[in-house]
Amino acid sequence: MQALLVVAHGSRRAASNQEVIDLIEILSSKTTDYPYITVAFLELATPSISESIDRCVQKGATEVVVLPYFLSAGRHVSEDIDNAIAPKREEYPQLTITIKPHIGAANGMAEMLLNLAKG
Amino acid sequence: MQALLVVAHGSRRAASNQEVIDLIEILSSKTTDYPYITVAFLELATPSISESIDRCVQKGATEVVVLPYFLSAGRHVSEDIDNAIAPKREEYPQLTITIKPHIGAANGMAEMLLNLAKG
Repeated sequence: MQALLVVAHGSRRAASNQEVIDLIEILSSKTTDYPYITVAFLELATPSISESIDRCVQKGATEVVVLPYFLSAGRHVSEDIDNAIAPKREEYPQLTITIKPHIGAANGMAEMLLNLAKG
Repeated sequence: MQALLVVAHGSRRAASNQEVIDLIEILSSKTTDYPYITVAFLELATPSISESIDRCVQKGATEVVVLPYFLSAGRHVSEDIDNAIAPKREEYPQLTITIKPHIGAANGMAEMLLNLAKG
């Protein structure tokens, strides 16, 4: 079973974190490919990456697809997410964990900005 | 003439700022609706919002469409961008400045994440 894990930075503002949680709800309503879709925060909010990967395993995931919800490939994307995931790879050797590019590098970002400009 | 101004947070990492500048190039290649498309950084990098709006006016803009390149509606989006733009509205009373929702609230974000997961 493939689980989807959206990793966001996390904020002191609850409303900012809630915005990501709401996005998870939208994702869940748009696909049946991932029986479990959840979120993790790198800092300032919970659940952590470690906690969310544990939860994916408890839900029966054999693979976790990690989506870094970051606009630029800063240290958080290039190092911190990897560093949080490395011990989980050791903890769950049977689990496949795939880290996708950050959302800022996704195809379609320019089109989405142009749609936003028109809207 | 409508100018498009993408406002990003700004980073100490030059590569992160360059990523936004590269996105401006992609935007420019995808539309002819905005004869001038540029970027501004809220902090840690230049040009500032004030400098970029000056530049839009110098280029002949009568309207500037501001796109906040932020994933969540934190203080930066809700206050800092407004505060940076307010004095420019006074400085250029003929100029229309429209602030669009932040990119994290854009339609299509969930689909883009799902495409990223598949890619």
